[in-house]
Amino acid sequence: MAKQERTAISPTREENYPNWYQQVIKAADLAENSEVRGCMVIKPWGYSIWENIQKNLDQMFKDTGHVNAYFPLFIPKSFFEKEAEHVEGFAKECAVVTHSRLEDDGKGGLKPAGALTEELIVRPTSETIIGASFSKWVSSYRDLPLLINQWANVVRWELRTRLFLRTTEFLWQEGHTVHASEEEARLETRKMLDVYTEFAEHYLALPVIRGEKTESERFPGALQTFCIEAMMQDRKALQSGTSHFLGTNFSKASDIKFQNKEGQLEYAWTTSWGVSTRLIGALIMAHSDDNGLVLPPRLAPAHLVIVPIYRDEEEKKGVMGFVELLESRLKKIRFEENKIISIIDDRDLTGGEKIWQWIKKGIPLRLEIGPRDVDSSSVFLGRRDLPARERKSVPVEEFLDKLPSILEEIQNNLFSKALDFRDKNSHEIDLKEDFYKFFTPLNVENPEIHGGFAYSHWCGDQLCEERIKEDLKVTIRCLPLDRPEEKGNCICCGKPSKQRVLFAKNY
Amino acid sequence: MAKQERTAISPTREENYPNWYQQVIKAADLAENSEVRGCMVIKPWGYSIWENIQKNLDQMFKDTGHVNAYFPLFIPKSFFEKEAEHVEGFAKECAVVTHSRLEDDGKGGLKPAGALTEELIVRPTSETIIGASFSKWVSSYRDLPLLINQWANVVRWELRTRLFLRTTEFLWQEGHTVHASEEEARLETRKMLDVYTEFAEHYLALPVIRGEKTESERFPGALQTFCIEAMMQDRKALQSGTSHFLGTNFSKASDIKFQNKEGQLEYAWTTSWGVSTRLIGALIMAHSDDNGLVLPPRLAPAHLVIVPIYRDEEEKKGVMGFVELLESRLKKIRFEENKIISIIDDRDLTGGEKIWQWIKKGIPLRLEIGPRDVDSSSVFLGRRDLPARERKSVPVEEFLDKLPSILEEIQNNLFSKALDFRDKNSHEIDLKEDFYKFFTPLNVENPEIHGGFAYSHWCGDQLCEERIKEDLKVTIRCLPLDRPEEKGNCICCGKPSKQRVLFAKNY
Repeated sequence: MAKQERTAISPTREENYPNWYQQVIKAADLAENSEVRGCMVIKPWGYSIWENIQKNLDQMFKDTGHVNAYFPLFIPKSFFEKEAEHVEGFAKECAVVTHSRLEDDGKGGLKPAGALTEELIVRPTSETIIGASFSKWVSSYRDLPLLINQWANVVRWELRTRLFLRTTEFLWQEGHTVHASEEEARLETRKMLDVYTEFAEHYLALPVIRGEKTESERFPGALQTFCIEAMMQDRKALQSGTSHFLGTNFSKASDIKFQNKEGQLEYAWTTSWGVSTRLIGALIMAHSDDNGLVLPPRLAPAHLVIVPIYRDEEEKKGVMGFVELLESRLKKIRFEENKIISIIDDRDLTGGEKIWQWIKKGIPLRLEIGPRDVDSSSVFLGRRDLPARERKSVPVEEFLDKLPSILEEIQNNLFSKALDFRDKNSHEIDLKEDFYKFFTPLNVENPEIHGGFAYSHWCGDQLCEERIKEDLKVTIRCLPLDRPEEKGNCICCGKPSKQRVLFAKNY
Repeated sequence: MAKQERTAISPTREENYPNWYQQVIKAADLAENSEVRGCMVIKPWGYSIWENIQKNLDQMFKDTGHVNAYFPLFIPKSFFEKEAEHVEGFAKECAVVTHSRLEDDGKGGLKPAGALTEELIVRPTSETIIGASFSKWVSSYRDLPLLINQWANVVRWELRTRLFLRTTEFLWQEGHTVHASEEEARLETRKMLDVYTEFAEHYLALPVIRGEKTESERFPGALQTFCIEAMMQDRKALQSGTSHFLGTNFSKASDIKFQNKEGQLEYAWTTSWGVSTRLIGALIMAHSDDNGLVLPPRLAPAHLVIVPIYRDEEEKKGVMGFVELLESRLKKIRFEENKIISIIDDRDLTGGEKIWQWIKKGIPLRLEIGPRDVDSSSVFLGRRDLPARERKSVPVEEFLDKLPSILEEIQNNLFSKALDFRDKNSHEIDLKEDFYKFFTPLNVENPEIHGGFAYSHWCGDQLCEERIKEDLKVTIRCLPLDRPEEKGNCICCGKPSKQRVLFAKNY
């Protein structure tokens, strides 16, 4: 930007990134904190983004042979205890149901009553309760593979919460699959990582690094955890999806056995994988700017808003007639396979107020239509991926003709911009000193901003991983899958290493 | 039926209706009890019916101006206590969260720890927690109406549970709206009752009686509750949806106030309305027969199954080639606005085994295709609404041509059949003796079977309502909206009455 303009969001990203994030959510009316500690309310505009995420991801799951089902919200404590690492990982932060009713406490209030004989845990994830069903469903190799997904709410008692990124209750999908062979389960784990990668890049316009987690960052109970990691505009990493190869750990815990073709009983191989409402946090932090939310057209609740501009009843008549005609034409246009969704904003506010509200809400296109536009049969077009004041008059026929390609262009622009940003802030670092400097905040006023992603060598020793985490709050996000092997020396201890890994600060 | 045939489901409806219901669910693989008391697992075939219910109902909500949002699973106890009748109605059966983690109990197990300062209730319904948000969202008449829906899971600690009909956890949608005037809120309550009526009749093929509940059957805290009631094949009524006019009860409890056009602060008027996975129970009990589930085509997870029949590799080649061609043709056909969904069942089982599995699963159409069908370019067609053995060979072109109308015909047949059944078992009864006889089981072996729906006069006195409930386990299902006023005498006490009401046994 040549000149410093006033922005719709204050503070800006530069001034205070975490606060900017909260303000974007507020200005776009996406969500808010509820009165229940750590639980959020997802408001209609935010929820419709989630609906679009669901719709598209669900189709990708179905196209890869998965079906949906629904399992209980509650997990008996004894089930939860079956897998040692798993319970270790989740027991510290779970909602425990102990009673089945409330009764008069004799002081005008109510107290818990009907104590349960076994406590129930509100699911933080469903491996153990789904495993109990799977052990009944699977008896022969003919029952496999079992490819199930669940859309559900889960609860993890987080201490520090942040809208979308970390909340006590969140919405997600969790895939759970059972296979007759180790190889097939490993392939499934990777296949779903690919589905997440494609979803992130195609729909969220979010370039991601696919990789494997180190042992310390694995899902509790998994043998391998794969992830996709994206860079946010403060250069921190956000884990945007995980896929776990669970080996036979959970089939042993839940007794999922099958008779193989040779007639012998074997433990089955399982996987699980998930993404959550956290993706909305990723979308906000990757694309939004100092004027508010920026939505990728493929996930936007609406593609465009039409703001009619008139001063009196006569002008109104002409303008609204034109707008209605335009709307009926829009109904016939498709953006990829979807209908164009348009909003006519005829509220009793000034044009400027309305336009700025829609900019903050991230709608891809804004059409202002006044008497002069009607006369010249054109629309006054603003694009969310361009500066707010850079609008232009476009003949209506040309606009209708080009609409799908404009939307595609915006989608692609957002992806390219995010990719350029990530590339610019990703470096191969080989000297320990440079590495420490890279992760030291650039200025004291905004301690969150630092170098970005570092690809550096790591010897594989957990002690080096811990040292760096302690010194810099930097973690190994993943061992990237798409980088060639390369010899070098550990950034921490100097010992030989076979691969560069991705180091970053993270959400 | 002329001759008693062996049926796929045992017992039959006649033999033992409640057990028949369980067996249909099992044979169609819709759901099962979980290891968590009262919670069910909805299996893929059952869940996909729910997905179709969601998809179509959601579109109807959106077409009437509603948007989706998501509110917390947990309700602080103090919120719950705000509306006196409401807490009275739900406190006796609710899951209470009292702790936020588990810790070592010193005996190798885990015990609840991190006691909460205020207990949380797992939502049995969300009026109070949603009200807390609405009180922040509404400040002026310009913010109204607020038309919100939520798809969610809810928990009511039921003692006697039954798959789909009554489970501790169930899935539902709950609409919550706020209005500036009493009249508008009343209209909304009735509008959503109409949406439910249309959904039940058009999609579920379920004729329903629209009516108002008596005071004793109202939603706790509501001023008026409207419902739709359907007759099951055991002649009992199943409440299939409710819509509540809440007056200002909940806006007072949650402090939902707005400034009206005159600048004065007023309490807003609210409504709520919901349907749940119970609808799947209604669908099963209204249409299924002694061979299993019967699905209305508009909600069936798939419209047809193709079962290829061959004896050797050469026959297989010919048959599968024909089947693939058929499938590609099917992809281009629409049933109303939806794609035709077909399943090719090429599993390693006999044709007969497969066909019977699909009959039990209720799929509308079955196509058996063997070498002779290929030679004559035809399909061997079975319809789920006709007897299992009544199949016929249809030229493939004719089949493809007529497919949408066959599906529509099946849908209409199911509705007509259910309507005829209801009409046949609905009677205006004016004598107390006849009334008591009507509701007395026909035979001792199957105590559930009785007369059906009785339209009889009621004076309006709660004592008469209670007496009948006590004597016969018969309740007033509703004061029907679509019946003319008519003078008469109360079936219980003989005092004057202004209207016939719907009496029935119910789920």
